[in-house]
Amino acid sequence: MPITLDGSNLTIVAVIAAIAAIAVAMSLVFRGEVLKAAEGTANMQRIALAVQEGAAAFLGRQFRTLGVFAVVAFVLLFLLPVHGEANELLLKVARSLAFLVGAGFSALIGYMGMWLAVRANVRVAAAARDAGREPAMRIALRTGASVGMATVGLGLFGAAVVVLLFRGDAPTVLEGFGFGAAMLAMFMRVGGGIFTKAADVGADLVGKVEQGIPEDDPRNAATIADNVGDNVGDCAGMAADLFESYAVMLVASLILGRAAFGEAGLVFPLIVPAIGVVTALIGVYLTRPRAGENGLRTINRSFYLSGIISAVLCAVAAYAYLPGDAAALGTSAEFNGLVDDPRLLAIGSVVIGIVLAMVILSLTGYYTGTEDRPVRDVGRTSLTGAATVILAGISLGLESAVYTALVIAAAVLGAFALGGGGVVGLFAIALAGCGLLTTVGVIVAMDTFGPVSDNAQGIAEMSGDVDGEAAQILTELDAVGNTTKAITKGIAIATAVLAATALFGSFTDAIATELGDGYSRFVEASVVYAPTTLVGIVIGAAVVFLFSGLAINAVGRAAGAVVYEVRRQFREIPGIMEGTGKPEYGKVVDIVTRDSLRELATPGLLAIFAPVAVGFGLGAPALAGYLAGAIACGTLMAVFLANSGGAWDNAKKLVEDGNHGGKGSLAHEATVIGDTVGDPFKDTAGPAINPLIKVMNLVAVLIAPAVVGLSTLGSDSPLRFVIAGIATAIVVVAVVVSSRRGSTMEDGAPGPGPTTGNVSDPAETEPVRER
Amino acid sequence: MPITLDGSNLTIVAVIAAIAAIAVAMSLVFRGEVLKAAEGTANMQRIALAVQEGAAAFLGRQFRTLGVFAVVAFVLLFLLPVHGEANELLLKVARSLAFLVGAGFSALIGYMGMWLAVRANVRVAAAARDAGREPAMRIALRTGASVGMATVGLGLFGAAVVVLLFRGDAPTVLEGFGFGAAMLAMFMRVGGGIFTKAADVGADLVGKVEQGIPEDDPRNAATIADNVGDNVGDCAGMAADLFESYAVMLVASLILGRAAFGEAGLVFPLIVPAIGVVTALIGVYLTRPRAGENGLRTINRSFYLSGIISAVLCAVAAYAYLPGDAAALGTSAEFNGLVDDPRLLAIGSVVIGIVLAMVILSLTGYYTGTEDRPVRDVGRTSLTGAATVILAGISLGLESAVYTALVIAAAVLGAFALGGGGVVGLFAIALAGCGLLTTVGVIVAMDTFGPVSDNAQGIAEMSGDVDGEAAQILTELDAVGNTTKAITKGIAIATAVLAATALFGSFTDAIATELGDGYSRFVEASVVYAPTTLVGIVIGAAVVFLFSGLAINAVGRAAGAVVYEVRRQFREIPGIMEGTGKPEYGKVVDIVTRDSLRELATPGLLAIFAPVAVGFGLGAPALAGYLAGAIACGTLMAVFLANSGGAWDNAKKLVEDGNHGGKGSLAHEATVIGDTVGDPFKDTAGPAINPLIKVMNLVAVLIAPAVVGLSTLGSDSPLRFVIAGIATAIVVVAVVVSSRRGSTMEDGAPGPGPTTGNVSDPAETEPVRER
Repeated sequence: MPITLDGSNLTIVAVIAAIAAIAVAMSLVFRGEVLKAAEGTANMQRIALAVQEGAAAFLGRQFRTLGVFAVVAFVLLFLLPVHGEANELLLKVARSLAFLVGAGFSALIGYMGMWLAVRANVRVAAAARDAGREPAMRIALRTGASVGMATVGLGLFGAAVVVLLFRGDAPTVLEGFGFGAAMLAMFMRVGGGIFTKAADVGADLVGKVEQGIPEDDPRNAATIADNVGDNVGDCAGMAADLFESYAVMLVASLILGRAAFGEAGLVFPLIVPAIGVVTALIGVYLTRPRAGENGLRTINRSFYLSGIISAVLCAVAAYAYLPGDAAALGTSAEFNGLVDDPRLLAIGSVVIGIVLAMVILSLTGYYTGTEDRPVRDVGRTSLTGAATVILAGISLGLESAVYTALVIAAAVLGAFALGGGGVVGLFAIALAGCGLLTTVGVIVAMDTFGPVSDNAQGIAEMSGDVDGEAAQILTELDAVGNTTKAITKGIAIATAVLAATALFGSFTDAIATELGDGYSRFVEASVVYAPTTLVGIVIGAAVVFLFSGLAINAVGRAAGAVVYEVRRQFREIPGIMEGTGKPEYGKVVDIVTRDSLRELATPGLLAIFAPVAVGFGLGAPALAGYLAGAIACGTLMAVFLANSGGAWDNAKKLVEDGNHGGKGSLAHEATVIGDTVGDPFKDTAGPAINPLIKVMNLVAVLIAPAVVGLSTLGSDSPLRFVIAGIATAIVVVAVVVSSRRGSTMEDGAPGPGPTTGNVSDPAETEPVRER
Repeated sequence: MPITLDGSNLTIVAVIAAIAAIAVAMSLVFRGEVLKAAEGTANMQRIALAVQEGAAAFLGRQFRTLGVFAVVAFVLLFLLPVHGEANELLLKVARSLAFLVGAGFSALIGYMGMWLAVRANVRVAAAARDAGREPAMRIALRTGASVGMATVGLGLFGAAVVVLLFRGDAPTVLEGFGFGAAMLAMFMRVGGGIFTKAADVGADLVGKVEQGIPEDDPRNAATIADNVGDNVGDCAGMAADLFESYAVMLVASLILGRAAFGEAGLVFPLIVPAIGVVTALIGVYLTRPRAGENGLRTINRSFYLSGIISAVLCAVAAYAYLPGDAAALGTSAEFNGLVDDPRLLAIGSVVIGIVLAMVILSLTGYYTGTEDRPVRDVGRTSLTGAATVILAGISLGLESAVYTALVIAAAVLGAFALGGGGVVGLFAIALAGCGLLTTVGVIVAMDTFGPVSDNAQGIAEMSGDVDGEAAQILTELDAVGNTTKAITKGIAIATAVLAATALFGSFTDAIATELGDGYSRFVEASVVYAPTTLVGIVIGAAVVFLFSGLAINAVGRAAGAVVYEVRRQFREIPGIMEGTGKPEYGKVVDIVTRDSLRELATPGLLAIFAPVAVGFGLGAPALAGYLAGAIACGTLMAVFLANSGGAWDNAKKLVEDGNHGGKGSLAHEATVIGDTVGDPFKDTAGPAINPLIKVMNLVAVLIAPAVVGLSTLGSDSPLRFVIAGIATAIVVVAVVVSSRRGSTMEDGAPGPGPTTGNVSDPAETEPVRER
């Protein structure tokens, strides 16, 4: 039998590409280059081991905590109605199981990212010490590549297998898969984000600010926790987040694809990421550090290269697989946009997504890089003190958020214009998202580079075994890592927005299916100027504010606990400052672990139950407004937080590089304050908004049939209000419990408070400074 | 002829109430109690004179600058199509003239507020010195009352006269009136806001932070500018803002009232504020400071009292004037909400507005007052440094914004539920706004109290002629003023949101009138999930971010110029620090005046031309989305900025009152940084968002016929894109020009820069601090 380019065969190709990606990730090629490398001195290995143990312990405890949430979500999911071609019970079971698989994959990819990063860090440090710059950089790059390939592999594998098994019902089952992936990623982002920044801020406050000892100084009891945080937050969190974007984007594309392109719409969205796997592989292989070349340039080259290759291959695939005539698709979808050839539509949309990734890369680079005007301006304000640094960073963040949001909006509008109104336009938006996602492999690789090189420097510094040129190399890699982390944040946000917009389309598609002829009433009630919808928009935007506020506050509180513990150790363990006493690193790791897991519940519950409360309480149009408000405000807030934070971080670097007085000057102190404020902005609240908006959209998609069933715009069932009441109560209780904990460091501070302490409380023991 | 309760007579009653309010404002009762009071020592009078001159000079120059804008707006307004019963040309002329009158009234009320405040301040100081607490407080209260009465009087007068003259066409003409008032108020808010905070931040940075001299120290060249700023920003700006809210709310109510209630709908919205005039008068007379009573309590009592009286009188008016049966109104509007009796609807809506004002009063008080947990928590974080103070304040602001937004949303939903879908529900929302506005007299009085008592303390401090108990009294009044300022901000935001929501209703009403049978196409295109609408929401929210960022950045830049000038004076004028040399105060006033007027253009142009660009470029549905996004995000951002700023201000006060180490401790320094960051938040960007969202909604209402005429959802005229292109170009050029000025203090610094300076540059001359 000759092999033809039909749907099943291509889906199998996608599965194969996925498995290949995973195999590559696991293969000796990559792991060999990472794990076989030398591990450095005994000192370095001891430190690395402590970081490994701390990270594994945190993730382990986090998964146990999340297990409870997963079980509850599993049950609730089972209760929600489902419609499809197959048996309803079967679909429910399949959707709930897919939820578990999605959550499991998300956890797995996060764990793997962490596992590899905590092993690569010491090897990078050792390579820098013993073998030089290129080998060190190669290990960091290969580690990133391995996590990146695994991310795309698992995402594609899950989606493609579901399509193979369920065909027309695949979208329904994939809703469960996406929800599991998104929910777990959100929790990992929030928990890991709080962990990493509580440890970082706490370590800095006592170490740099109070005691005047450098970063990663072994005398600081919080240093191990700080390094653990890099891995569980930046690394595990980001990997899970991007995996989830990948999965959710595919879910939305397949739901809309089926409606717009029929059978072909269930296959083409799988081909695009399969191509992404191939190009990521090429990109990664081509990423060889050249002697004397800036590390960032190496990474950027691989990014641009794989983007261009992806675009070309997608064009080839569209011409090979899609018909040139919309009528041949066999759907009733109308092609009333700029193009009516499905192939051109597909190519145009994918290219829009790829171009979007490139534009955001340079936009974010401009606003957070040390070479360009914005960060230099922020750096200059350090001459007039911390307040002006903060103000300059905030206004930079606010403004840059606008440009990024406009670029994303332009991409959405562009794709929509290609496809025209209705489901074809929405599918075009989803395909643009898929185009953006062809870069995920490289993005994850770039991002993982960050914590690995950051940790490598930390281990080198703590061990005291690395100096001279090797230390220089590690500092340079660390700086490159900072910029790649900022850039990947920009792209992760764009991915999230496109995924959420496409999911939003799926939501209204679900409502339309449910309402049938009654849909026109929903349309009339959902106009943006209807007060109920407008209130929905306000509430959706408000949830983004609340979520950000809660996350920032949580970091403040947990960091306070770290401060008290480190102060206590300085006070009670003799000889720490002289280097004769050894701090209890594990204690700090335990405290941060406990606190960040405790803080994780409120934002998580908010994300899941706020849309439930709005949907059942105020109805489907208000829920639509809610999603719109959350997407709009979430986009802006996420970029604002990420770019302000990134700019402060690099403004500090500028000063440390000798500008405006250099290290130790008042200007430096001002930028350290800016950087500390930016920490929870850029690494806790900001990135957690990505999964937030996707989780909320997925919840809306999942509850859409129930919302419509109970409140078909008029015939209100009392059950509707019972559900809304319970959801509201959960949100209110969670928020109240969280806010009763008080702001920064009142409870949860195990050591004696500042007023009873006998050492090192600045307000009491330092003399009032004279000017 | 017996006098009946018909529309004309009642409108005349409203005119009479308005004139009475103005007369009372001007009357000897108030001005007598203010201007007849003693003016204190020669020293105090000299300082007061300098403040008076500076404030008058700034406002004079500002009005000249704004004259250009007014002429341009006048012409553009004339070009926009208009529809009505009367002759089109006549209506156009009337609308354009009304624009000028509205702008003139707005300027007048701002000028008057400033004029009175700069004369009251020295008298309050003198009274505290020579006559004691009660007389001092009475002068401050009476000054506020006078401005408050003038505000409501002028607003009501303008609206009522237009209704008398134009009857059915009144709404059209009032659009011009409202736009004039709003545009001028926005510019005064932005210009005054930049002035006041540039002077304040600049004075603090050099004075408190660098030189370690106290606030209002006469050795600081920026102190006069700082005191001028209180008057032109807090006082003139707030009075114009609330006047404009008043005018715009009436505009929206009358537009919607005519559609919902017919003739009666053109009258009842005038009766409610007329009642507000009466109750404000009663409230003000009852506000007599009792011996030993906290000043805030005195003011709150008058607020609650006038709210309750208003509610009762409105109920009486509704029963006396409105019919009990909707059919008797003679309109086709459907009453399908909770009540179908127009009287109950009117009473219910007004009460919702009044209750909203009270809830916001206590909510804002809770989040920004020193008595309650939130500010105490922020104060406590000062023990771990400036970074935690900033983080705690930001998360407090983000969270409190959510609660305020939800309360406002609940009021909107409540009023809408009373009235049901369609225009009746929208009119109910507008009436709730009118209810809220019955408190404006008292609100303006409370707000004016702030800068007057702030200035009184400043003058006392600078003159050196007030000490002991008198100084204590002034400090207490200043603290009360801080809280009243924060509370009035909350209410001003609520007013703005309700006014904007009602205007949003007027906008869609205008579109409906214009499209006739084609309206259903607009409805279909305006669903919140249509990508174009969603993009509109994103852009609307983005403009709020951009506007805030620009305003904050402008303050930073202008403050930088102040810092350089004050440093220069310390350096070049011998003997300033010893008190033998006299700083050139006028120079700093000139610099701040020049810079704040230069900075004012960009945010102003953005507010006016961004909706034009969206409306003509993307069409009416996107413009509707734009307005929704701006309202939702604007509400949250305005409250966030106001409450964060207020909390930091009071956290500093807490520390200064002896907590956490008191004045001069590191904790104090941390809260000073927080307060400085909060300055442009709470007094520049935050309050300017109120007029922003109203201006944008008014622009939308005004351009609605043209937008629909040129782009009736399909038949696109090329002119449409020409207009959109020009508007976009204006916005882009304005933003680029502004951002090319660079961040804080690069250009515009007339003195030698920090690297060439030879004294007092902290980064160069202060030793690196040892810990």
